[in-house]
Amino acid sequence: MSKGKRWDVVAFGEAMLRFTPPGAQRLEQAAEYRVYVGGSEANVAVGMARLGLQTAWIGKLPKNPLGRRVAAEIAAQGVDVSRVVWTDTGRVGTYYVEVAGAPRGSQVVYDRQNSAACSFAPEDLDWSILKSARHLHISGITPALSASCAATTRRILEKAKEIPELTVSFDVNYRSKLWTPEEARATLTPLLNADVVFCTLDDAETVFGQYGNPEEVARRLRELWGAQIVVLTLGSEGAVLVSPSYTGYGKPHKVDPVDRVGAGDAYVAGFLYGYLQLTLETALRYGSAMAAWKYSEPGDFCYASRSDIEAIISEENRDIRR
Amino acid sequence: MSKGKRWDVVAFGEAMLRFTPPGAQRLEQAAEYRVYVGGSEANVAVGMARLGLQTAWIGKLPKNPLGRRVAAEIAAQGVDVSRVVWTDTGRVGTYYVEVAGAPRGSQVVYDRQNSAACSFAPEDLDWSILKSARHLHISGITPALSASCAATTRRILEKAKEIPELTVSFDVNYRSKLWTPEEARATLTPLLNADVVFCTLDDAETVFGQYGNPEEVARRLRELWGAQIVVLTLGSEGAVLVSPSYTGYGKPHKVDPVDRVGAGDAYVAGFLYGYLQLTLETALRYGSAMAAWKYSEPGDFCYASRSDIEAIISEENRDIRR
Amino acid sequence: MSKGKRWDVVAFGEAMLRFTPPGAQRLEQAAEYRVYVGGSEANVAVGMARLGLQTAWIGKLPKNPLGRRVAAEIAAQGVDVSRVVWTDTGRVGTYYVEVAGAPRGSQVVYDRQNSAACSFAPEDLDWSILKSARHLHISGITPALSASCAATTRRILEKAKEIPELTVSFDVNYRSKLWTPEEARATLTPLLNADVVFCTLDDAETVFGQYGNPEEVARRLRELWGAQIVVLTLGSEGAVLVSPSYTGYGKPHKVDPVDRVGAGDAYVAGFLYGYLQLTLETALRYGSAMAAWKYSEPGDFCYASRSDIEAIISEENRDIRR
Amino acid sequence: MSKGKRWDVVAFGEAMLRFTPPGAQRLEQAAEYRVYVGGSEANVAVGMARLGLQTAWIGKLPKNPLGRRVAAEIAAQGVDVSRVVWTDTGRVGTYYVEVAGAPRGSQVVYDRQNSAACSFAPEDLDWSILKSARHLHISGITPALSASCAATTRRILEKAKEIPELTVSFDVNYRSKLWTPEEARATLTPLLNADVVFCTLDDAETVFGQYGNPEEVARRLRELWGAQIVVLTLGSEGAVLVSPSYTGYGKPHKVDPVDRVGAGDAYVAGFLYGYLQLTLETALRYGSAMAAWKYSEPGDFCYASRSDIEAIISEENRDIRR
Amino acid sequence: MSKGKRWDVVAFGEAMLRFTPPGAQRLEQAAEYRVYVGGSEANVAVGMARLGLQTAWIGKLPKNPLGRRVAAEIAAQGVDVSRVVWTDTGRVGTYYVEVAGAPRGSQVVYDRQNSAACSFAPEDLDWSILKSARHLHISGITPALSASCAATTRRILEKAKEIPELTVSFDVNYRSKLWTPEEARATLTPLLNADVVFCTLDDAETVFGQYGNPEEVARRLRELWGAQIVVLTLGSEGAVLVSPSYTGYGKPHKVDPVDRVGAGDAYVAGFLYGYLQLTLETALRYGSAMAAWKYSEPGDFCYASRSDIEAIISEENRDIRR
Amino acid sequence: MSKGKRWDVVAFGEAMLRFTPPGAQRLEQAAEYRVYVGGSEANVAVGMARLGLQTAWIGKLPKNPLGRRVAAEIAAQGVDVSRVVWTDTGRVGTYYVEVAGAPRGSQVVYDRQNSAACSFAPEDLDWSILKSARHLHISGITPALSASCAATTRRILEKAKEIPELTVSFDVNYRSKLWTPEEARATLTPLLNADVVFCTLDDAETVFGQYGNPEEVARRLRELWGAQIVVLTLGSEGAVLVSPSYTGYGKPHKVDPVDRVGAGDAYVAGFLYGYLQLTLETALRYGSAMAAWKYSEPGDFCYASRSDIEAIISEENRDIRR
Repeated sequence: MSKGKRWDVVAFGEAMLRFTPPGAQRLEQAAEYRVYVGGSEANVAVGMARLGLQTAWIGKLPKNPLGRRVAAEIAAQGVDVSRVVWTDTGRVGTYYVEVAGAPRGSQVVYDRQNSAACSFAPEDLDWSILKSARHLHISGITPALSASCAATTRRILEKAKEIPELTVSFDVNYRSKLWTPEEARATLTPLLNADVVFCTLDDAETVFGQYGNPEEVARRLRELWGAQIVVLTLGSEGAVLVSPSYTGYGKPHKVDPVDRVGAGDAYVAGFLYGYLQLTLETALRYGSAMAAWKYSEPGDFCYASRSDIEAIISEENRDIRR
Repeated sequence: MSKGKRWDVVAFGEAMLRFTPPGAQRLEQAAEYRVYVGGSEANVAVGMARLGLQTAWIGKLPKNPLGRRVAAEIAAQGVDVSRVVWTDTGRVGTYYVEVAGAPRGSQVVYDRQNSAACSFAPEDLDWSILKSARHLHISGITPALSASCAATTRRILEKAKEIPELTVSFDVNYRSKLWTPEEARATLTPLLNADVVFCTLDDAETVFGQYGNPEEVARRLRELWGAQIVVLTLGSEGAVLVSPSYTGYGKPHKVDPVDRVGAGDAYVAGFLYGYLQLTLETALRYGSAMAAWKYSEPGDFCYASRSDIEAIISEENRDIRR
Repeated sequence: MSKGKRWDVVAFGEAMLRFTPPGAQRLEQAAEYRVYVGGSEANVAVGMARLGLQTAWIGKLPKNPLGRRVAAEIAAQGVDVSRVVWTDTGRVGTYYVEVAGAPRGSQVVYDRQNSAACSFAPEDLDWSILKSARHLHISGITPALSASCAATTRRILEKAKEIPELTVSFDVNYRSKLWTPEEARATLTPLLNADVVFCTLDDAETVFGQYGNPEEVARRLRELWGAQIVVLTLGSEGAVLVSPSYTGYGKPHKVDPVDRVGAGDAYVAGFLYGYLQLTLETALRYGSAMAAWKYSEPGDFCYASRSDIEAIISEENRDIRR
Repeated sequence: MSKGKRWDVVAFGEAMLRFTPPGAQRLEQAAEYRVYVGGSEANVAVGMARLGLQTAWIGKLPKNPLGRRVAAEIAAQGVDVSRVVWTDTGRVGTYYVEVAGAPRGSQVVYDRQNSAACSFAPEDLDWSILKSARHLHISGITPALSASCAATTRRILEKAKEIPELTVSFDVNYRSKLWTPEEARATLTPLLNADVVFCTLDDAETVFGQYGNPEEVARRLRELWGAQIVVLTLGSEGAVLVSPSYTGYGKPHKVDPVDRVGAGDAYVAGFLYGYLQLTLETALRYGSAMAAWKYSEPGDFCYASRSDIEAIISEENRDIRR
Repeated sequence: MSKGKRWDVVAFGEAMLRFTPPGAQRLEQAAEYRVYVGGSEANVAVGMARLGLQTAWIGKLPKNPLGRRVAAEIAAQGVDVSRVVWTDTGRVGTYYVEVAGAPRGSQVVYDRQNSAACSFAPEDLDWSILKSARHLHISGITPALSASCAATTRRILEKAKEIPELTVSFDVNYRSKLWTPEEARATLTPLLNADVVFCTLDDAETVFGQYGNPEEVARRLRELWGAQIVVLTLGSEGAVLVSPSYTGYGKPHKVDPVDRVGAGDAYVAGFLYGYLQLTLETALRYGSAMAAWKYSEPGDFCYASRSDIEAIISEENRDIRR
Repeated sequence: MSKGKRWDVVAFGEAMLRFTPPGAQRLEQAAEYRVYVGGSEANVAVGMARLGLQTAWIGKLPKNPLGRRVAAEIAAQGVDVSRVVWTDTGRVGTYYVEVAGAPRGSQVVYDRQNSAACSFAPEDLDWSILKSARHLHISGITPALSASCAATTRRILEKAKEIPELTVSFDVNYRSKLWTPEEARATLTPLLNADVVFCTLDDAETVFGQYGNPEEVARRLRELWGAQIVVLTLGSEGAVLVSPSYTGYGKPHKVDPVDRVGAGDAYVAGFLYGYLQLTLETALRYGSAMAAWKYSEPGDFCYASRSDIEAIISEENRDIRR
């Protein structure tokens, strides 16, 4: 499917171990924690690999059982992990997620400082990787991790610009536990002149101070950033896309939520699948369907197959198929 | 309760091992699968045994730990399994159920071909069993399993007709993964001149091409088949019953669904309990209550007791009883 | 926080082992039962300790692994268990809770007769404990356990009256499996002239025969009992408080229920936290918030921290915080 | 196999719920307990049913989910539970087993007082049951439970003597937590003039004060009791049998122990299988093999099939069979 | 590491889902089964991938969640699964393993007939794969699966002979549940003129009728087959290797066995790692170390890393490393 | 028991979350990890509290769910955690333990850098705590954590010297993953002039270069350090104690090991219990018994009660007690 390139998509970022108590238990209460692997960009790579694209994930991991586990779970879903940077030192970042309904709400405790990923530096990367890819995906989490990660992100984007047929997507993904809105705005604004930028309405408000009608917000952000396409996601209200040639709305699906962590990444995976293969209208539909599907699965990854997604898009998904 | 007979009800069909990932996990993801036993007719026998009837289940199982387990779980709920046909060869059929809400929906992967049950043949049966029973229950799954299973089903029904006081019920239960609507219609139509036939509105449409007002559909099917009573189940809309002397509607209960597999069988168990002991009005009420109860329990079996069912019928069921 | 006293609150009553099948399974079905510890007064002490008060729980337990476990789980949440009465004989009371939605509903099977707690007698208590406390909490379950427990309850309340600055709360908590409404009314009425009495609208009707407008019911009960403050809880309708100087309503929160056992105790813990530190308006708010929070957690204890509760009171609780 | 009788063996006694923490955890530590069913006589009935005999277990259980579960697990293994006495009141006895190796050792905490079984009285029994059985099995636990249980045991044995072809076995099974050696000796001695009496060397010493050479001990006990056959079990040393016509030794198997609770009952089941069908030499071999097999399985029941036992008797049991 | 080739080793065979009850439970008893993936050749590929070689596994799987899971777990450990043959029909083979110590012993129940793998036919294979590999690994299980599998095995070996630098290993791996010794001998003998043949002493006796001194047996088999190197494994006695230039013995390690399934495959993986990179002496050492390591891990795969294996070879492995 | 002091023992050090895969699984393999709490000094405090002493543990933890959990599990076992230093920032240290037998061996992966505990500084401590204690326990892990932890350790020991009746014990506990032998020797040597010093023979060799006859080694270390009592532990060989007035040997117990992590701390707890209450001979016996007992329990804590320990000391511990 990758038309002369080795990979359809290369995603770059940190992946971590995630610990979640089973069955609505609290972290303070559960006798065991389920072990998942997650990380925004790896989640995107997994989602797209399961839809049928050739994807690679690039991260930095320590050579220990926990680092190997992170790579293994990503590889299991068909993502190429052969370009992961392995290091003798450092730790695997971890985070703890309690999944809960109202009024408690899900809660995340991060323990990701000083991870091997935080030491990612420009010299860790083999730039030839980019030549073998059709598309590069990056998120705003990485530059928030450390100065060297910010430098690496800038450098990747510079290098990507030098490769004519390589498109780039950037997911703003503001994390208030990593930096302030002011820091995020200052660092991210020069990086967002990408082919596709994903941003939540919340982040548009908090980080970029853009309020009001979503379509207007998306237009203003597009100009501010110099991006080609801006996809502004509106939570349970769907999404709005603005581009030079097309403006469109994505409508959300009804969900019985099981675990919403990773739904935004599933959206990105679905959207990019449509963007790289089909039309922008389809991209909006795949994005919404993937995000909805993810809500129904525990863990960070979206395990939908292409036929699963096509089934719910065509609304032919019955209660039980047998 | 069985008035001079050994069993109130004998149910004949295949029972299998069922594997389900716990807690909304996917089959591709879960580290362990819960092990249940299920099969439409065995589910009916279990449901009725728990309501207080003497029931027997007849199936064919291999003499190995998996075959023994299937029989053990059915026997645990009070069903007589002494007439199970045991074989030295063959496998236990299995199926895999993912339980999920919207938009994913529950999914079933069957692995039931070439099971010991598929080799059931008329010569496996001791026909004297039928003389000891008040009622025989059969489903449309069995004739779909194999030619010898179809022959056995036909033969049982012929034998049953020869026993004056033995009533017969037949659940259409169309399985699209086993045969086509055309095959099902051709095979089942001559078999459905039973005392009670259960059919979903979906199957009425797909298999028998009957559309429109449910009561009208039920009437047409009744004539088409030569059945005494037809119970057409309408999913969340309840059920409609037509018989020579009585037409009635069953209304559904409100449910917080946990696992809907087996709800149709619970309906049959509840209905037949009422049919064999009480009135058709009561049968409709027991059917709805059993189906609703089943939605709240994981696995195929309905674990309701008679007092549970009577409590929800009289709407006296409070949130917690202590 | 306890202003010259050792404990803010001392709670007296029985705590038990609680067994619950995981994941909506039935007691008849589950291969293992989760082990929790619970008991109305201990639940209250735990809830308040987690909010930051100094609390002690007084109960009677046998010196065996099960008795030690009960004390350990209460101590883990910061409650002082150094005044527990240990005995060489007797058993730990147990109860079995099935958690279920409609139409099944949660069910409790008690096995608490002849427990060590039932043998609690006035001579077991060191009355000097009461001098070290600001507040005493009691429930109507204890006098229902045995004659000696009833005598002990009466004696504690007499002793408490002798200590000028010690306030007392009493939760009616009628248990139909322990005694009849008539027995409860006869025994409880003389005991309810407390500073704060909690009663559900159901118990007001069933035990005290008071029907009608909740505020009126609360007023009548207040006079009947000679209580200072009566808090009448109305389930999903909130609560109404009457006192000489203030009448107020508490409004309920929206909940995705996981396990409602202990929600009433969480209400009491939240209310008393507000009552002892702040205003009656705040007490109503903390009560509602704690009860709602408890609905979202499995087990009897409410694991909310003060900041959790303050967050949902200020409605700033977002779906995920990261 | 039962030659004109309905049951080969009827076993009478208490069965309980057993709770065991998984994986060497302590009762004070485990978040969940595995739920098993056990009771000496029920264990014997299960062991024999799995070997192919028709067996029935008679006990007394409350009509609640826990009582139903006890009966269900026994029925699952092929034991007839249709003669269980059901009661509206009372509790299911429970016990807690920690399984551990050296130096800790397995520990049992009993909570069986005041169970429904303790209320068993002679009038609960339908004496015609004994006429339908070839063999009756009883243990010394039952008369230790309560005065009415002791009376019932005496009465059963009297009734059994009146039925010419009914043989009787009695397992001494002294439980120091239920009574003293003196009480046990006084109560049991008149009851032990049975066809087969099982006794451990420990109990021979503790209860009956018989020390020395095991064969001599067995002979003295036989005379003391007026029994036909005495089987004295010697733990890891095997067993010795004395009878009028035959004296024999059973040799133990090598075991990797997983759970030794129920091994004595498995011994009895194996021995009686051989005794009822074959020779005393074979009985000794089946007893040893069943006891050894039980050591390798968690829970009280012995899940061996006849072919399993024959395989290890013929020492043809290889490490893995595939 | 693969010196101009894409893969160091390509392994061809069936992989299946394996179900195992946790914690010494029986298949008839456990409420859930752990889900593993295994298959002799896939196990070998995984073992070698974890040691650092580039490996690919070729099998045939249905396009369903179970087929995807099999491929995912193999890919997770670094094995290339891009050459798996996917089919729209067919089932995934399954097997059930009870792990137990004496006297029970582990037991395997196979349910692998009619799997997608059984339909493997010569036309399914892209023969160019072999040109990209340094080494091909095959086992005697595959020709036992079906006539088309036997034909495919023959064809692969013919094709492999045509590629000058491709070495071939063959593991006899007789499965008595798939065919008779006579069938195995007739089919396998012409196929065993490989570079390395692995055979257990048991199979040498059962299938090839070779008894006596192991070194002599190995020599005779080598001549009989026309193999270059024969490695005869002796269970707890180690192994003996005969080749034109070298005869050597491998000594076993001391093990606390957890799960022996897959130990033979781990042996092969370790041996081939040494064979392809180092010396025959080293190959024997790696084989023994890998087999011993596997005994300590549940599931079919050997999760040892190269440093783990080197540590136990140099006997520097301490009880705990911290 | 504490004779006018508030605590018998105060232990100071880091406690962490520990993650362990259940059932011999590997960290790379398990779907969930069991959650334990551990840390050398906290383990000692727990062990002694369970034996009946008043103990307190002092550590530094972040105010988040993970920090609260660490304190809760220590408090549950009766240890006073009211003097824990809570901080708004920082993380809870974690470590991952794989438990395995030969040849794999248990393995520990530490992730404890930059924990809140590493920031412990002299100004965090309220020195008056020491006046309320009879005994202070410290280990050589704390000074290895950070410069401020080393400074705090030195300061505590200085302060302790100023309090006449306060005795001090020090467990060398060398951790090769935290510092080199040279660093450890240089830092620890001036700190070891304590009342009791515990050291393994391994650490005596690796850190202090003392080889040869254990009693001689212990004597030389005693002089080198200026300690009163040196207890040199010899693994499966027991222990040797040298003091001015007494030299004694402790003999080990036979164990079926389940989890050896924490056995050294259990030894210390048992020894100090004897040391503080009884004689040095008894101290040696309690130390050995506690260490042996710990081997049989999963997790870091030793859950033995005093009667458990006395039972195995008097060798009256039978296989099962019932």
